[in-house]
Amino acid sequence: MCTKPHPIAEKANRMFFDSNLGDKGLFPGTVQVEKEVISQLGELLNNKNATGFLVTGGTEANMMALLAARNKAKVEKPEVILPYSAHFSFNKIFNMLKIKPIYIPLDKAFRVKVSEVERNINKNTVAIVGTAGTAELGAIDPIEQISEIAVKNKVWHHVDAAFGGLILPFLKETPLFDFRLQGVTSITVDPHKMGMAAIPTGGILFRDRTLIELIKTETPYLTGKTQFTIAGTRTGAAVASAWAVFRFLGRDGFERIVKNCIKNTVTLAKGLKKIGFEVLCEPQLNIVAFRSNNTGKLAEILWRKGWFISYIPKYDCIRVVLMPHTKQKHVAAFLNDLA
Amino acid sequence: MCTKPHPIAEKANRMFFDSNLGDKGLFPGTVQVEKEVISQLGELLNNKNATGFLVTGGTEANMMALLAARNKAKVEKPEVILPYSAHFSFNKIFNMLKIKPIYIPLDKAFRVKVSEVERNINKNTVAIVGTAGTAELGAIDPIEQISEIAVKNKVWHHVDAAFGGLILPFLKETPLFDFRLQGVTSITVDPHKMGMAAIPTGGILFRDRTLIELIKTETPYLTGKTQFTIAGTRTGAAVASAWAVFRFLGRDGFERIVKNCIKNTVTLAKGLKKIGFEVLCEPQLNIVAFRSNNTGKLAEILWRKGWFISYIPKYDCIRVVLMPHTKQKHVAAFLNDLA
Repeated sequence: MCTKPHPIAEKANRMFFDSNLGDKGLFPGTVQVEKEVISQLGELLNNKNATGFLVTGGTEANMMALLAARNKAKVEKPEVILPYSAHFSFNKIFNMLKIKPIYIPLDKAFRVKVSEVERNINKNTVAIVGTAGTAELGAIDPIEQISEIAVKNKVWHHVDAAFGGLILPFLKETPLFDFRLQGVTSITVDPHKMGMAAIPTGGILFRDRTLIELIKTETPYLTGKTQFTIAGTRTGAAVASAWAVFRFLGRDGFERIVKNCIKNTVTLAKGLKKIGFEVLCEPQLNIVAFRSNNTGKLAEILWRKGWFISYIPKYDCIRVVLMPHTKQKHVAAFLNDLA
Repeated sequence: MCTKPHPIAEKANRMFFDSNLGDKGLFPGTVQVEKEVISQLGELLNNKNATGFLVTGGTEANMMALLAARNKAKVEKPEVILPYSAHFSFNKIFNMLKIKPIYIPLDKAFRVKVSEVERNINKNTVAIVGTAGTAELGAIDPIEQISEIAVKNKVWHHVDAAFGGLILPFLKETPLFDFRLQGVTSITVDPHKMGMAAIPTGGILFRDRTLIELIKTETPYLTGKTQFTIAGTRTGAAVASAWAVFRFLGRDGFERIVKNCIKNTVTLAKGLKKIGFEVLCEPQLNIVAFRSNNTGKLAEILWRKGWFISYIPKYDCIRVVLMPHTKQKHVAAFLNDLA
């Protein structure tokens, strides 16, 4: 889900190569750059008051959200409700934060069963997670309905839009998944995926400033007096790369790139069906997952031919992500080999 | 504690700009680069069997070690024994991992009181932490004695050498702090500090391969089937930068740079005493901490003059780290302004 960073990302990266956001007082300009990226992400996700940070990736972003939710709830035995399809990094997080996961089954479109979400809420529930673009199938959970449940039950609702967060705002018709939904408390959105920024540039946004107080650490010897991220030392170079890509491409540029990715996705999905493969679900994002009658074997053969696709045992499928560096000619060649 | 990365770090960074260690199968060459850096660090710290990872920095490194220790011990109410002088990032870690910290007071040389360490061990102790070069004063805890206690009590001993780990091996006379000590289970050592690599390049080494099994996560859809780090997506660029600096400088190069840093440190410490400031402890590394009769006020004045030193309320001192980018002329100008 990473791609070749945009050329301007590399240029900006070089300019900020020795900056460190872990020591804020020394790099006030870089701090400002981060604020501007967060502000742009906030606007994109329809909340000008959103506050947040550029972090090492989706795992740190998701962890910060669940840490805040856990610290807010202050229950003995914290539980988090999340779809069976949630990213594997949540398992790391549950182990670290000592949270019990309550996994909810999926419907036929690989989206979480909302009725089951509500049924599993109890006094230990510290958060409900929904995914706006699962890593494996690109499926989008019914965030709007989860948000309503979260409001009704006064529970933290975290949206993992690490991948989809920089695609969905640029599509014409998409389900609501952002801060316009009252229940959405925090959103993960990673510029180093579809944002074409340098690694590491994950992003975490909170609905308002008060929420980050839940994860504050004192930093007694540094030039800034507090930290909120998990990592202390943080590259300003990657942050600058995200800033530069946003500024350079603008909304138009992102729309053009996303449109092209979706075009390639549609071509691939159609081509696969034509050959006779089963496409697991109608792609909503630039991800296609398909099956043959011996998918594991097929994946092996493709690897030997130099197609580095991923095989997903959980759904017995091959998954292709059509990132900006993938071109129509690659899709055509892939379909040709498959045929 | 970061410095301007070495020019060759930038060159290597550029070459590996789009590589991602989170998806191992796609970047086998970068995986090999990481292995070689870990192997070099292992040799430097006298353990060819050491295994480990290049991570986002000292916080992630320390967290991985304490997570492994906690998971190994499997006690209800885990405790970690550590010096009062340990890095503030441990507070983040204790909050996240739900570990109770047992802070131990320091002796007059700002090193942990070993007798107190031993006295506080109980059935809930999952690890003892010692620091080989505290961030604030550069003090080195008596790691050799802590190691003996750890062996005797069969407790995990983690050494935070994030800063000192790439200085101490290049000094002529230094206390033992590495894997030669039987009790040392894991060591944090950050190439993005004195290793002059790009941010983020932290390092965590474990005594042997079996220990990392304690922090393994399955990664069902990626080209590699397991992950051990907290971050998923990881830049290969920073890893390559560490590799290049190690290869380019070699032992001689590092010795030369460290020698120069120490020379500047000695000049500064002597100059400060001559002016009449109190130097808190005789520098063992390239860190000088000093006091006046109104240190807070002095720090403010220095900032206004453009000296971005750090003031540390905990010890009421000003602290200067003499990194490779600091030259004799800077030291002279600083002393001149102070006088």
